[in-house]
Amino acid sequence: MIKEDNFITPIPTRWIGPIHIKGADGRLDQEVSVPLATYESPLWPSTARGAKISRLCSGINCTVIDDRMTRSVALRSKTAAEAHEAWQSIVARENELNDIVQSTSQYAKLVDLNHQIVGNLLYIRFEFTTGDASGHNMVTKAADALLSWILANYNQLEYSSISGNFCTDKKVSAVNGILGRGKYVIAEINIPRDICEKNLRTTPEKIVQLNIEKNLMGGIIAGSLRSANAHFANMLLAFYLATGQDAANIIEGSQGFVHCEVRGDALYFSVTLPNLIMGSVGNGKSIPNIEDILNKLGCLNHDVQSGDNARRLAIICAAVVLCGELSLMAAQTNPKELMRSHLLMERQENK
Amino acid sequence: MIKEDNFITPIPTRWIGPIHIKGADGRLDQEVSVPLATYESPLWPSTARGAKISRLCSGINCTVIDDRMTRSVALRSKTAAEAHEAWQSIVARENELNDIVQSTSQYAKLVDLNHQIVGNLLYIRFEFTTGDASGHNMVTKAADALLSWILANYNQLEYSSISGNFCTDKKVSAVNGILGRGKYVIAEINIPRDICEKNLRTTPEKIVQLNIEKNLMGGIIAGSLRSANAHFANMLLAFYLATGQDAANIIEGSQGFVHCEVRGDALYFSVTLPNLIMGSVGNGKSIPNIEDILNKLGCLNHDVQSGDNARRLAIICAAVVLCGELSLMAAQTNPKELMRSHLLMERQENK
Amino acid sequence: MIKEDNFITPIPTRWIGPIHIKGADGRLDQEVSVPLATYESPLWPSTARGAKISRLCSGINCTVIDDRMTRSVALRSKTAAEAHEAWQSIVARENELNDIVQSTSQYAKLVDLNHQIVGNLLYIRFEFTTGDASGHNMVTKAADALLSWILANYNQLEYSSISGNFCTDKKVSAVNGILGRGKYVIAEINIPRDICEKNLRTTPEKIVQLNIEKNLMGGIIAGSLRSANAHFANMLLAFYLATGQDAANIIEGSQGFVHCEVRGDALYFSVTLPNLIMGSVGNGKSIPNIEDILNKLGCLNHDVQSGDNARRLAIICAAVVLCGELSLMAAQTNPKELMRSHLLMERQENK
Amino acid sequence: MIKEDNFITPIPTRWIGPIHIKGADGRLDQEVSVPLATYESPLWPSTARGAKISRLCSGINCTVIDDRMTRSVALRSKTAAEAHEAWQSIVARENELNDIVQSTSQYAKLVDLNHQIVGNLLYIRFEFTTGDASGHNMVTKAADALLSWILANYNQLEYSSISGNFCTDKKVSAVNGILGRGKYVIAEINIPRDICEKNLRTTPEKIVQLNIEKNLMGGIIAGSLRSANAHFANMLLAFYLATGQDAANIIEGSQGFVHCEVRGDALYFSVTLPNLIMGSVGNGKSIPNIEDILNKLGCLNHDVQSGDNARRLAIICAAVVLCGELSLMAAQTNPKELMRSHLLMERQENK
Repeated sequence: MIKEDNFITPIPTRWIGPIHIKGADGRLDQEVSVPLATYESPLWPSTARGAKISRLCSGINCTVIDDRMTRSVALRSKTAAEAHEAWQSIVARENELNDIVQSTSQYAKLVDLNHQIVGNLLYIRFEFTTGDASGHNMVTKAADALLSWILANYNQLEYSSISGNFCTDKKVSAVNGILGRGKYVIAEINIPRDICEKNLRTTPEKIVQLNIEKNLMGGIIAGSLRSANAHFANMLLAFYLATGQDAANIIEGSQGFVHCEVRGDALYFSVTLPNLIMGSVGNGKSIPNIEDILNKLGCLNHDVQSGDNARRLAIICAAVVLCGELSLMAAQTNPKELMRSHLLMERQENK
Repeated sequence: MIKEDNFITPIPTRWIGPIHIKGADGRLDQEVSVPLATYESPLWPSTARGAKISRLCSGINCTVIDDRMTRSVALRSKTAAEAHEAWQSIVARENELNDIVQSTSQYAKLVDLNHQIVGNLLYIRFEFTTGDASGHNMVTKAADALLSWILANYNQLEYSSISGNFCTDKKVSAVNGILGRGKYVIAEINIPRDICEKNLRTTPEKIVQLNIEKNLMGGIIAGSLRSANAHFANMLLAFYLATGQDAANIIEGSQGFVHCEVRGDALYFSVTLPNLIMGSVGNGKSIPNIEDILNKLGCLNHDVQSGDNARRLAIICAAVVLCGELSLMAAQTNPKELMRSHLLMERQENK
Repeated sequence: MIKEDNFITPIPTRWIGPIHIKGADGRLDQEVSVPLATYESPLWPSTARGAKISRLCSGINCTVIDDRMTRSVALRSKTAAEAHEAWQSIVARENELNDIVQSTSQYAKLVDLNHQIVGNLLYIRFEFTTGDASGHNMVTKAADALLSWILANYNQLEYSSISGNFCTDKKVSAVNGILGRGKYVIAEINIPRDICEKNLRTTPEKIVQLNIEKNLMGGIIAGSLRSANAHFANMLLAFYLATGQDAANIIEGSQGFVHCEVRGDALYFSVTLPNLIMGSVGNGKSIPNIEDILNKLGCLNHDVQSGDNARRLAIICAAVVLCGELSLMAAQTNPKELMRSHLLMERQENK
Repeated sequence: MIKEDNFITPIPTRWIGPIHIKGADGRLDQEVSVPLATYESPLWPSTARGAKISRLCSGINCTVIDDRMTRSVALRSKTAAEAHEAWQSIVARENELNDIVQSTSQYAKLVDLNHQIVGNLLYIRFEFTTGDASGHNMVTKAADALLSWILANYNQLEYSSISGNFCTDKKVSAVNGILGRGKYVIAEINIPRDICEKNLRTTPEKIVQLNIEKNLMGGIIAGSLRSANAHFANMLLAFYLATGQDAANIIEGSQGFVHCEVRGDALYFSVTLPNLIMGSVGNGKSIPNIEDILNKLGCLNHDVQSGDNARRLAIICAAVVLCGELSLMAAQTNPKELMRSHLLMERQENK
C-alpha cells in the first residue's frame, strides 16, 4: 500500500454541521457544512453539537477585524545610530518600497512596516495584503526584493537574514497578535438559557465561571502568552488539513481568546482569533479533493473581490472553532460528562 | 470523489533520508528513512539535505532527558488556607493516589504532582508515565478517577474543571517546558567545516551568528516564550501526521531551542525539544498505513520495555527536526539561496 | 545638602492604616500600621482607603503557601548525554549537596533542585530556605560552594556561570512562579455589599467585571506573563523601600494575580503574590530607621522560629498590596472618580 | 527619628563615575558623574568599574530610538462588529482626538493610537509625547478627556476602564516593547582586548559566550519575556530613586537586551532599553535634593527643546545600566571573582 517515494497519508475526515454562519456586514447568512480531518474522532460529535447550537440560536456572527501577512528581515549595522538613521530613511520611502513589492506579484501590496533595533541589529517587519493566498511565498518573494533594494541603497547595512523571526511564522509570539498577522476574526453567539440547559447540559453562569477559572486564570498560571482557550488547536488543525492550509500555522492560530458573559437570561459566547493564516489559493489548494472542498465551502467564487474568498474561509474557520470550543467547555462544566462522552464516542468509532 | 460523511484527506507524503541516528546509550546506531506528510513540498528536499549531512558526519546523537504526560484539575475552596491545607494533605498521600491511577490503566503510573493556588482556587497537575501511548486519554481517565477521589475525601473542595489549563494541552505555555510534558529529547551533530562549506554552502561561524541574531534575539524581540528556532513546527507537523500522532500537540512541541557552537574547525549543532507528545499506540496508530509506517520505523517492536517504542519514535522525530532546521538555517545564511531554491523546488513539484 | 560621595536620597514616607491582618493559622489577628516610601503621594490615601475597608470587614486573611530562595548555575558539557548523566548523578547526591550548603551558613538549607538541559548546556537551579534573610548573598555563597564541588567531582562539566538566569533574580520569568522563589503569600477579604457601595463607591459585580476585562483580558492581550493585576508594583516598591528590602525584586514580586468573586451579597477579593523576596535581616536592615520600622512591624521578634519574622513581613506586605489594589480597582469602576481623586490628592500634597 | 505620620526613608546614595557619554548626534560628549541610591552597596564599586572602562575606551555611545507615553482605555460594546465599526470611525478622527489632548495640557500630543478587540471588548491604546515629564498624569488626564468624548460620541460603547492594562504601566508585557512606551535608548561601547583583560579580567570571547549561555538561553528557558540581561533592574532602581523617578516603572524598564560581538580584537558591548519611563519634571522632581541632582546631571537646561532634558536623563541612565551590566558580566566569567568581590565590598561597607 505504501509506495516508497510518493504516497499519501489518509487523514480520516467528516463533514460536520451545517453551522449557521452570519457575516457582520450582513452579506453572509448561510448554513455551511464543514470538513474536519483528524485522527481524534471525538472532535466530530463535539463540534457537531456546537453546530447544532448555532442552528438553534439563529447563527454565529463573524467579524473580520484585520487581514495582512508579514515577513521580517534582519540587517546588521556597525552601530545603533547607523541602524536608526537607515530605518528613518527607509520608512520615509514607503512608496518606493511598495513599487518594488508590486513588481514581484500582482496581489502583494505593502500596507505597513515596523521595526526593532537591538544594539547594532535592525529588524524590519514588512506587512502586506496578499489577495486570496495565505501569502507565505508571496511575502518571501517581496521581502527578498525589498532586502536586495535595501542592501543596494544602504551601504551601512549588511545582510543578516531574509527572515529575522520578528515576522513571525509558525512560532509562539506576542508580535503577531499585537501588530497583526493573518486574518483577525471574531465569532460570537447568544445562547438562551433553555438551550444552554437542554442542549449543552450547562448554564450561562457555569460557562462564564469555567472560562475565568480555566481559560483565563488557568492559562495565566501556566505561563501562557496571549492565549486563553480550551482547545482552539484541535479545530484549527482539522479544518486547516481538510482545506489544504499549511497547518503548521496553527501555532500562532491557536493563540486566541474566549470571552463570554451572562447577558440577561442568555450566554454571550465569543472566540477571538487574531492570527488565522489561511488562503483559498496556493500550495495545497490545487489537489483535486481540496479544490472540491473549497468549492463546496463557497471559497472559489470568481465574482468577489480579491481576498474575499480567503476571508470567507477564515470566517467559516472561526465559526468551527466556536462550535468545538463551546461544546468542550460545556462538557467540562459537568464533572462526569467529559470522560464518559469521550469514551463512548471512541467506542462507537472503533466498532 | 468526496463521500459526504466519511472520507479521507490525502496528505502528500514522501520517504526522506535515510537519516543516520545514534542513541546516547549506544543501543541505537542506524540509518532510518522517515516519512513526511505535508502540503509544503520544499520541506522534502530541505530535510533530505539535512539527512545527507547526518550520513556524512557519522550520525545525529539523540538523548532522551525525560518522559511524562500530564493533566491538571481545577478545584474551588472557600479560602486559600483551606486550599493550602487540602493540597498538603493530598500530596502526602501520593501512594494512595498512585493506586487509584493504576486501577484505571495497566500502563499509567503517577510520577509527580505539582500545584498552584490562586486566591481560593487550587490547581493540581498530575504527572504520569503512560507506556507507549502519548497518553491523552489515559491521563484524562486517571485524572477523572483522582478527581472523584479528591472530591469524595475533601469536603472543602468543589469541582471547577477536569482540565484546569495548568496541564497544559495544545496551548502555548511555560509550564510544560519547566515541569515537563511529553518526551524531552535533544539531537546533536558535529559537522566539519568542509562539509559545512561543500554541502551546506555555509560556515560554522555563519550558522552560529544566524542562530544568535535570528533564533535567539529575533525570537526574544518577537515576544516569544521558551522558543528559539526557525521552523521546528514544519518538521513536527509532517512527521506527526505521517505517524498517526495528534498533530495539535505541535503547539507545545514547537517550543524548543537551537544551540550551536564553533568547536575547533567544526560546527556543533543541536536541537532541544522538551515537549514531544508522541506515542506508538493509541488513536490514529491502528490505521493500516500508519501501522505499516510505525513498523518500518522500528517502533512496534515487541521485545522492548514499555515506553521504548514511543521513545524511539521521539528520537527519530528529533533527528528529523534537526535535519530540517539545519538545512533552512544554512539556506538563510545565504542571501539569495533561500528564495531561489524555494522557487526551484516548487517548479519541480508542479511539473 | 548633597555631600559629593556619600549622602542619602530622602524618600517621602508615611504610616498608613492600621490594616487589620489575620494569619491563616489563627496566630495573627492584629491591626498593623504600615510605612510606604514613595514619590507618588496619591498612593497614601488610596492604600489608606483599603486599610479602612480591612478594619470594617474584620480583617484581611493571609496565607503563606511557600518560602524558598534560589540560585541557578550554568555548566557546559561536551554533549547532552554527558550533561544528562552528570545531572542524574548530582541529583542523587542531594544529601551531600546539603552538607556543603550547610557548611556555608547556619541558616541555609537545600530543599530542592531542578534542571534544564539545552544541547550541551546544563542549568541547575538550587532551592534553599534562608531563615529570616531574603537570601541573595546566602544562596550565592551556597551556590558558589556547590559549583566548586561539582566542578571538582565532574570532569565532564566546565564552568559557564555562577548565575545562569534560570534562578531568576530581578527579571521577568515564568520559572519563579512555577518552581517557586521567595514567599508565596495570598491575602483575602470578604466585603459586604453595603461597604462596597458606601466606602468604595462600587459594587461586587463591578469589581468582578473590571477584574475580568482589565486585569485578566487586558493583561493577556498586552502579552503579559503570569501577571494579572492593576498596580501591585506601586505598593511593593513603597513597602520594600520603607522596610529596607532590595526593591529591584519587585520585578518578580509584581507578577501576581487578583481573583475575586461575587459571594452571596458580598465581594470576595484576593491578591496572590507568589514571589515576595523579603527579609527581616540582611543588607539594608541595620540602618537605624529601618530597624525601628521592622521593630514596629513586629518583625524583629526573638521568640519565634527562624523565618517567622520574614514571613510575617511578607504577610503584612501582601495585605498592603491588597489594600492598594482594591482601592484603585474600585476607583476605576467609576469613570470619573479616578482622575478627579488623583488630581485632588496631588493638589493637597502640593499645598 | 521617625515621626509617626510624615518622615523620610533615607536611601544610601553615592556619586559614581564619571562616565564618559557620547550622544549619537554628536551634541553630547561629556564625562558625567551619576548618583546611585541603593541598599546594595556592592552596586557602587561594580558600576564604578564600568564607568572607568567608559573613560578608558573613549566613551559610551547613546542613541534615542523613540520617545512616547501611553494610556489605554477599555470600552464595552454589544458585538465585535459594533466595536470594530466604532474603532474605524475613531481612528479616522485622529485630528479631533489630538485637539482634545492638547486642550488638556500644553505638552501632551497624540502621536499614534492602536487597538485590540476581544469579543465585544474594545481596547484603545493612545500614544503621546509628553515633553520633559514621564507623563503618567498627563496621559491619564488626556485619556480621561478622550474617553469622555468617545462615550459622548459613540452610543454603542460603554465605559469599562480608564486603564485597560493594554497601556501597560508597571507590569510585565510584550506590548510596551513592540508598540513603544517610554524612551527607547541604546548604549554601546567598544572595548579593546587589552582593556578587557587588564581592567575586566576577562576576554571579548568570554563575555560573548556568557551572554549567549546566560542572558539569551538562560533567560529563554526561565520563560522570560522580551528580556535578556543579567541585572538591569539594579541600576535602574538606584538611578530612578536618586533622580526622583517613579521606580515602579523598572518593571518594564528592566525588559531589555544585551547584545555583544567580538569585533576584530575588541569587544562590542551594547544594552538596549526600549522602555525607560523617565522625566526631568513632575512628581518627585521638586524635592530639593532631587532638583540639585537633576541640575548637576545637566537635565534642567532651559535652553533646549521640550523633551530634551528628559531624553538626556534617559541617555545617562542607559549609560549607567551599561556600566553595571558590563561589570557584573565580566565578574561572572570568572568562577571565583564574583563571590569574592561581593564579600569584600560588603566587608568594606560595613567597616
